[in-house]
Amino acid sequence: MRGENEKLVSVPPAPQAHSQIDTRGRYEGSWGRVSALDRWLAGRMLEGLGGPSVDLVLWNGESVSPPRGESVRRVRVRDRGAFYRLVANPELEFGELFTANRIDIEGELLPFLETVCRARVQAGRGGLTKAALRWLYRPRKNTLDRARQNIHQHYDIGNEFYQLWLDPQMAYTCAYYPTPDATLEVAQIAKMDHVCRKLCLQPGETVVEAGCGWGGLARHMAKHYGVTVKAYNISKQQVAYARERARKEGLEGRVEYFEADYRDITGRFDAFVSVGMLEHVGRTYFPELGGIIDRCLKPDGRGLIHSIGRDRPALMNAWIEKRIFSGAYPPSLGEMLTIFEPRRFAVLDVENLRLHYAKTLEHWLERYDLAVDRVTEMFDPAFVRAWRLYLAGSIATFTVGELQLFQVTFARHGNNRIPWTRAHLYEAGEA
Amino acid sequence: MRGENEKLVSVPPAPQAHSQIDTRGRYEGSWGRVSALDRWLAGRMLEGLGGPSVDLVLWNGESVSPPRGESVRRVRVRDRGAFYRLVANPELEFGELFTANRIDIEGELLPFLETVCRARVQAGRGGLTKAALRWLYRPRKNTLDRARQNIHQHYDIGNEFYQLWLDPQMAYTCAYYPTPDATLEVAQIAKMDHVCRKLCLQPGETVVEAGCGWGGLARHMAKHYGVTVKAYNISKQQVAYARERARKEGLEGRVEYFEADYRDITGRFDAFVSVGMLEHVGRTYFPELGGIIDRCLKPDGRGLIHSIGRDRPALMNAWIEKRIFSGAYPPSLGEMLTIFEPRRFAVLDVENLRLHYAKTLEHWLERYDLAVDRVTEMFDPAFVRAWRLYLAGSIATFTVGELQLFQVTFARHGNNRIPWTRAHLYEAGEA
Repeated sequence: MRGENEKLVSVPPAPQAHSQIDTRGRYEGSWGRVSALDRWLAGRMLEGLGGPSVDLVLWNGESVSPPRGESVRRVRVRDRGAFYRLVANPELEFGELFTANRIDIEGELLPFLETVCRARVQAGRGGLTKAALRWLYRPRKNTLDRARQNIHQHYDIGNEFYQLWLDPQMAYTCAYYPTPDATLEVAQIAKMDHVCRKLCLQPGETVVEAGCGWGGLARHMAKHYGVTVKAYNISKQQVAYARERARKEGLEGRVEYFEADYRDITGRFDAFVSVGMLEHVGRTYFPELGGIIDRCLKPDGRGLIHSIGRDRPALMNAWIEKRIFSGAYPPSLGEMLTIFEPRRFAVLDVENLRLHYAKTLEHWLERYDLAVDRVTEMFDPAFVRAWRLYLAGSIATFTVGELQLFQVTFARHGNNRIPWTRAHLYEAGEA
Repeated sequence: MRGENEKLVSVPPAPQAHSQIDTRGRYEGSWGRVSALDRWLAGRMLEGLGGPSVDLVLWNGESVSPPRGESVRRVRVRDRGAFYRLVANPELEFGELFTANRIDIEGELLPFLETVCRARVQAGRGGLTKAALRWLYRPRKNTLDRARQNIHQHYDIGNEFYQLWLDPQMAYTCAYYPTPDATLEVAQIAKMDHVCRKLCLQPGETVVEAGCGWGGLARHMAKHYGVTVKAYNISKQQVAYARERARKEGLEGRVEYFEADYRDITGRFDAFVSVGMLEHVGRTYFPELGGIIDRCLKPDGRGLIHSIGRDRPALMNAWIEKRIFSGAYPPSLGEMLTIFEPRRFAVLDVENLRLHYAKTLEHWLERYDLAVDRVTEMFDPAFVRAWRLYLAGSIATFTVGELQLFQVTFARHGNNRIPWTRAHLYEAGEA
């Protein structure tokens, strides 16, 4: 397992000196005293981040406060080398250094991350720079091979690991909470029903699923809606798991899993569905995806794409892109429309479930923390910290509105066999 | 009244000969016999329109059929001059010639229009050409003055005329039919409640409405949701009607109507709403509209824009743009997002009510036909025919999916005081 995840632990360890913490909580490294330039750099960095209410505690215990307001959180930088890396590129290096234990948060991680995210957003930071970068930046092309590597890196780190903190259906996408106090189990089933209702599935119909994870939605559709499903995924371990589980549940012949790219989909179907794959497609491939949907959807077909998105175009966080989701890009709704408009798919319904994803991630982090001993047995400490940061950071970004979650339902141009209203989505006990 | 509508009746009348119809239904004009070139031109035009199942009956009674399939409808062109104009520019001239009674439809107008619209759509006609034209075409700028002229042309033709065929609330926008058999009256009230629920209006809140028509939604909000409303409209007659009616209903102080452009909105509000105005804004003004919403919405504010739209960018029908709605442009959803994304408004909900607009228009046309004697007393025959064509043509375009109706609900970036789900829209008896 470890061999497969070397990328995640390639951050150089901190110099030995940094682990020598004295009883007053000071780090007694020999990286010299803090200069006026250091303090100035720290101040500029905090300002650049929108002035979060955060004290930056340097390696000798001295702290730098934001220009305005009272600090409510403290972050410790354990050595001068870490400090310079952080100042140079906070977006990437915060994750790198936190993972390597060269940055530490006093108190709870989540409120700290929310404070930092909210400050950036409120100051409107990142907007112009990001917009400019967007045109300069050329994301790695998610070719068939590259896509397979990206997906392998994240999803093939072991089914057992994901089983520790996902629900029993192994849904690794935003759940739908009918009420905020619903359990994760209830909410993941409710999400599947919400999707099936939006697609107006009828017994005997055929569905193609692009990016099926561990296959839970496909099984649910076949079992509860009487449809047959062809589900595509390029993660070897997920497909193996999905096939085995469908066999055990007696769904052979009703659900078929293909270890293949969405670009390999063949056949024509009554419904196209994709839950949590679009993030991995990359915006340059959206028109091509539209063409694939056009090719595989019957004249009266319906479609649904469920994806993380944004309220305006922006780049993925550099650390997440490097360490967690290579090749990922959460699009704005405007960017998503480049899938639909060139092929004249009519958008019937868009629902934004942003706060449901924050809630889902809270449940995942809670379970992850409960299972952390087992995770520590399976992986090295850098992995354990990196995943904690990723889950907590995701809660923060959905909570402050940096990320959105869009469910977009669509049909072909001029298809009049569409639901009259959306009331059927909210009728009790139909599913 | 007539003086104000000269633009609508400026089509030159047909030569006298055309009204001499013999007993076999032939038009005995003296515009010469039909040549091989005429037949060829007629065939090319039908082909260019996607080959609708329509026979084109020429001035001597001879008919030209589409290349393939059986004809189910017949259209008569009464003279050679009309024929050449139609061939040269069917999109504009069909309306012009129909209005001038130089083209006639055998049988019902609506099924004929649907047949023609559907053929164009199914053949994918207009797409590439329109996309190319879109970049060449510079729509007239909807400056403050021009906007006022455009609105005057359509909405100031007399409140009495609209009262003949609109519902008692005088809602001249797509209704919301809880079930397809609801009456127009029920559906217009249901639309207002649907909008108010989407906006989560609370008693004591303030609302600004951009483009308020005869003021029905503003009155409904004040009366049933306990809010105060400032409503903007540049149609003199509509504002006069709205003020008088609010006074009669005792809503003074709770609803205020301004005869002013949306660009003149001042103040800050809990909700921004615009139902059926965006079509008149013009896509080049969308970012400016976004700036106005940004300026007038409180931090926790919500907004809703209800507009005719398209499933991809395309020009307005030339005849409608010339005779009915000058300066109008129904945008695609992607184009609508240029209002929201630059200002980081998060789209919470998009609902497509296309078939509800077809139904609304059916109800309007039915009432229009019942009131046609009164309309004929008020206006000249060209006006009567033009409005019939506009209403029937609109039914056809919504039915075949050439036009969409989008309701877009939005909030500021990171606003977490948003409804948890949309179930509250579908709870009985809440409003």
